[in-house]
Amino acid sequence: MDSFIKVGIVGGTGYTGIELLRILEQHPHVRLGLVTSRKGEKCKISKLLPHVKTGIAFSPLECASLKTCDLVFFATPHGTAMSFASSLIEAGTRIIDLAADFRFRDAALFEKHYRIPHRCPEILEHAVYGLTEFNRSAISKARIVGNPGCYPTTVLLGVLPLMLQEEKVIDDRFLVADCKSGTSGAGRTAGTNTLHAEVSENFKAYGGMNHRHHPEILAQIERFTGSKAELVFVPHLIPMTRGMFSTLYLRILSSSRKIDFQKLFEEYYRSEQFIHITDRGCFPETRFVRGSNHVHISISHPAGSDQLIVMVAQDNLVKGAAGQAIQNMNLMFNLDETTGLKQSAIVP
Amino acid sequence: MDSFIKVGIVGGTGYTGIELLRILEQHPHVRLGLVTSRKGEKCKISKLLPHVKTGIAFSPLECASLKTCDLVFFATPHGTAMSFASSLIEAGTRIIDLAADFRFRDAALFEKHYRIPHRCPEILEHAVYGLTEFNRSAISKARIVGNPGCYPTTVLLGVLPLMLQEEKVIDDRFLVADCKSGTSGAGRTAGTNTLHAEVSENFKAYGGMNHRHHPEILAQIERFTGSKAELVFVPHLIPMTRGMFSTLYLRILSSSRKIDFQKLFEEYYRSEQFIHITDRGCFPETRFVRGSNHVHISISHPAGSDQLIVMVAQDNLVKGAAGQAIQNMNLMFNLDETTGLKQSAIVP
Amino acid sequence: MDSFIKVGIVGGTGYTGIELLRILEQHPHVRLGLVTSRKGEKCKISKLLPHVKTGIAFSPLECASLKTCDLVFFATPHGTAMSFASSLIEAGTRIIDLAADFRFRDAALFEKHYRIPHRCPEILEHAVYGLTEFNRSAISKARIVGNPGCYPTTVLLGVLPLMLQEEKVIDDRFLVADCKSGTSGAGRTAGTNTLHAEVSENFKAYGGMNHRHHPEILAQIERFTGSKAELVFVPHLIPMTRGMFSTLYLRILSSSRKIDFQKLFEEYYRSEQFIHITDRGCFPETRFVRGSNHVHISISHPAGSDQLIVMVAQDNLVKGAAGQAIQNMNLMFNLDETTGLKQSAIVP
Amino acid sequence: MDSFIKVGIVGGTGYTGIELLRILEQHPHVRLGLVTSRKGEKCKISKLLPHVKTGIAFSPLECASLKTCDLVFFATPHGTAMSFASSLIEAGTRIIDLAADFRFRDAALFEKHYRIPHRCPEILEHAVYGLTEFNRSAISKARIVGNPGCYPTTVLLGVLPLMLQEEKVIDDRFLVADCKSGTSGAGRTAGTNTLHAEVSENFKAYGGMNHRHHPEILAQIERFTGSKAELVFVPHLIPMTRGMFSTLYLRILSSSRKIDFQKLFEEYYRSEQFIHITDRGCFPETRFVRGSNHVHISISHPAGSDQLIVMVAQDNLVKGAAGQAIQNMNLMFNLDETTGLKQSAIVP
Repeated sequence: MDSFIKVGIVGGTGYTGIELLRILEQHPHVRLGLVTSRKGEKCKISKLLPHVKTGIAFSPLECASLKTCDLVFFATPHGTAMSFASSLIEAGTRIIDLAADFRFRDAALFEKHYRIPHRCPEILEHAVYGLTEFNRSAISKARIVGNPGCYPTTVLLGVLPLMLQEEKVIDDRFLVADCKSGTSGAGRTAGTNTLHAEVSENFKAYGGMNHRHHPEILAQIERFTGSKAELVFVPHLIPMTRGMFSTLYLRILSSSRKIDFQKLFEEYYRSEQFIHITDRGCFPETRFVRGSNHVHISISHPAGSDQLIVMVAQDNLVKGAAGQAIQNMNLMFNLDETTGLKQSAIVP
Repeated sequence: MDSFIKVGIVGGTGYTGIELLRILEQHPHVRLGLVTSRKGEKCKISKLLPHVKTGIAFSPLECASLKTCDLVFFATPHGTAMSFASSLIEAGTRIIDLAADFRFRDAALFEKHYRIPHRCPEILEHAVYGLTEFNRSAISKARIVGNPGCYPTTVLLGVLPLMLQEEKVIDDRFLVADCKSGTSGAGRTAGTNTLHAEVSENFKAYGGMNHRHHPEILAQIERFTGSKAELVFVPHLIPMTRGMFSTLYLRILSSSRKIDFQKLFEEYYRSEQFIHITDRGCFPETRFVRGSNHVHISISHPAGSDQLIVMVAQDNLVKGAAGQAIQNMNLMFNLDETTGLKQSAIVP
Repeated sequence: MDSFIKVGIVGGTGYTGIELLRILEQHPHVRLGLVTSRKGEKCKISKLLPHVKTGIAFSPLECASLKTCDLVFFATPHGTAMSFASSLIEAGTRIIDLAADFRFRDAALFEKHYRIPHRCPEILEHAVYGLTEFNRSAISKARIVGNPGCYPTTVLLGVLPLMLQEEKVIDDRFLVADCKSGTSGAGRTAGTNTLHAEVSENFKAYGGMNHRHHPEILAQIERFTGSKAELVFVPHLIPMTRGMFSTLYLRILSSSRKIDFQKLFEEYYRSEQFIHITDRGCFPETRFVRGSNHVHISISHPAGSDQLIVMVAQDNLVKGAAGQAIQNMNLMFNLDETTGLKQSAIVP
Repeated sequence: MDSFIKVGIVGGTGYTGIELLRILEQHPHVRLGLVTSRKGEKCKISKLLPHVKTGIAFSPLECASLKTCDLVFFATPHGTAMSFASSLIEAGTRIIDLAADFRFRDAALFEKHYRIPHRCPEILEHAVYGLTEFNRSAISKARIVGNPGCYPTTVLLGVLPLMLQEEKVIDDRFLVADCKSGTSGAGRTAGTNTLHAEVSENFKAYGGMNHRHHPEILAQIERFTGSKAELVFVPHLIPMTRGMFSTLYLRILSSSRKIDFQKLFEEYYRSEQFIHITDRGCFPETRFVRGSNHVHISISHPAGSDQLIVMVAQDNLVKGAAGQAIQNMNLMFNLDETTGLKQSAIVP
């Protein structure tokens, strides 16, 4: 590919927007067309984000300028991308939405959980769910991608290899996902609950058993496997900025007790560049994926038990947001999937 | 009570020893008899611990001086208390061991998991497990108390009210405890794994499914309920110093679906001073028990489901160690159980 | 003293208000009369602050109820106390304001730096600056106390023993105060700058050389010593919640090179209960004063140099705010100054 | 350049070694020849450092294999590089030592402060101090580079532009450097003082006014400017992993009061790729250089005062260690200085 992809970022001052800027700066085939800020500032990007070395200034959010891009990332709250989607698609501009506007095929389900009307339900059937490892073919042809939520990425990467086996190996009525997220997952909007002095040296569950990623996970399990599952999903907040860790407790069917689950996962993900199964007896740690698009997964099957424990660690801003979005962009533009994403984790 | 309890602390420079010092300073009926340090320093306590205002110096670890105390706390690694127990008991000095030497009735079980021979197995049957809320009568008469591990305290406080019902309400073959601890739980011994630069901004599981608190929990469930249970127990490390949070996933038996579990817990703990059930729909946070002996517990029973989620937050150094030890001491000396322990959490 | 002091807290949901609640719960001579919340909630205090065990509910902010108290603490933003001061004083209710309304004798100076008109300038001459160790006599008779800012407390405790010597020992034209504060100092108001994900793993200076504590320090130096000084004051933000550390760089006059400054400080503060000079060669650490009203100070005079380095560590919410306020209350009501304030630091 | 530089890393499991691995993975002209571990492990690198994707294993530390490299980085404690230097230089292998063995020209000064004899004092005069921006010509021809300490890098970058002016502009008898470092600066060796539970939520000064970087700074000021200076240098420990922040307090000579120091610095560093002067009135923050080789510097000259405050923020592991080492390697091999170092900071 000799030309550049002209990229727009709507919402360049939120955490996922800032992360898109960081990664795309290193991408050899991308040219930043325009970047908007949430509050409409017109200054140079580097004035608000002194670590970003580009000389360009923030642009106002106008459909006309977005249309000049080959691809627009929406790193915005829910409800923004859907307002521009029809016009952009028509103009030939592709879209990757990092919010939830295009994660559900069923507009009613979206509206139930996000409590706003969907402005372009007719587009939903063309939108592709951007869980790269499980949806490559559709993503590569997509005009519009709904990038997965951070929690759903970890849970789906942990359960789908099991649920896509020919024979059932786990009891899909008893999935438990105990998930923990760093605070950047809450976004950059000011709020008392995410002040440093509230969060630091504190651990808590949140979301009241009604987190919006719960229906997303269930809907995607049904889409990918064809059958419904029951899931207990409890998100917790870790006193750290980046990183997500999901501990999945799964019930092994008695017919499957003899399966070597370590091997099953190793084989399932053998050709993946970003998914790594830890050595037997080792567990993932979020620091080993910090700042990278890699995901580390461990499999534990305590001897004689019917419980399978799958642990998944990712950087919520990379594989859980901006990194996976760029991985999808690469597919959409026929680039090697790992382009611009080869950086290792930053340790310590 | 008009006289003072003369107290000895073996291991005053570890985290639980330091915490005993902090709390006992405020205790109106205690006089510090002697304090030993792990490395045998002879200086004033305040030289190593500048926040401790007592003028006394560290003492060497000698049985003769320990015998002059009414009660000795062992805030030491496993294996220390058992070397002094027989002599002290004989001399009439009572013992509270904050390590594991006296948590198991079965010496073989202790030896299997701690990999050292037990030096006074004959005493084990007289030792009392110091889970205060469930063992008051025995504790008040005890000569020697095995203070519970931090994880077991949270898990047992969360499951025993259910397992002690007349009729079974949860399936005891499927207990899941997803537990998270602050780093002070790892103690003060230097180690690469607990360096700030390794732990900070990191979340991980540890212990390889073989944590020593696992058999302790199972043994105590059997002791208190008379029946065996199966438990998946996964400890994780939180990048913060103090606090422990356990999320328990329990299967409700179909015969018990209509039970109001919130009410069950509220009634069970109604007269407890240190156990608080959060309001419906609220979850505990470790900060709200930081520095205090209080435990906050929430109960969630998602509508239509057979899953019960019980969350338990404690300060691992207080109710999980030094605080519960002092609560037990109060019982052993006929004091009000809350004496010296009334401080609220330190927030933020 | 056999009766209770009836105390009101205006602003019980901010960090200094929460800290007042925590400490006053342990105070043997105080009864909580009323507590208001910043947003006017009417619920029980424990609903918003689950660690506070009192059963009382928040009250609305009404002058009539405040007048029923013996003393009202204003743990509010600047500008609140001055609206109630005249009425309360008239009613015989004493006031301790933890904001800046009564820290300046000169209304014009206040108005210049706080940019709001002072509503009761006539009261200012009666207000007493609550730096306890240097103003006991006036505080004990005061009707209204302006509690010092957190930074000024550290800087003044570090320089006044030098500046109050009969002969000048340091050059008052060259005071440098490099100060560092935990994030609780910024208060509990939601703001992007104090989000966990902005502050954690970050260190910065802030305030643009125009921090409001700068003129407060200068005005108080002039008040206590009678002469003006020049000060460079640079506040920084530490990625932790509690604690303040000030490193003072002072120029020793050549006539004073032979003074033993360690001894000078030890003698100056010899009878103080809350001020501790570290051993020679040791430095203070904020953790050793965390949660306590104690202040640790070190003195370094590198051999052959004319520089004196004074380091001061305090808990910004205790000696820097709520603790010093209660210390002042004790004086105002003829109680032992340390009543309710004897707790040691919480370590780790 | 079409061939690769064959690089060896001695000490690949310490923090600076890990950082060299991370950055060199992205370097287009480097091939990893061998990597040794501190404890002599022989396993694959990825077994100890799961985020490093290279398939190679650790090598034993043998002079013969080091000699096969074009360049060896010593990311080791002081005293290691000097044992191999003569042999390697003779074999034509160049050396960059990240420890102090080659930072001093004067062996006696090294020995005084590091308390070990220097094993190759005859080489010292050929060693080049690797403060890239001030020593390019010598570095590009060097066989052996002594990479600067992290603190000296910040202090020298902050004072040299002033001290290298034709006329003196600041008083070199009164330099004050109040420096703050993240905990990774203490290295990866287990120690009680750097445990998470000791460091977290704590701020302190350390080093007893005798930090080894003090004589390094003074020696380099003398080398670069030809005149001696007097410096008060106080290092502090920040409760975070990465980042260093130095606040410099400098006395402006009366003859220089009218200088526009902001402009002076902007012009001095105008052509530098990694040194950035913040906008007037803005201050640096460590997060904006985290993970990058960039340094942010601010200049404040309060109106009417003779004090100049220079603040310098860097990532202690990048510009303060591994990044500057690679910057120097690029010069030594005639590559563009920024090769492999173009990544922006990772925010948040």
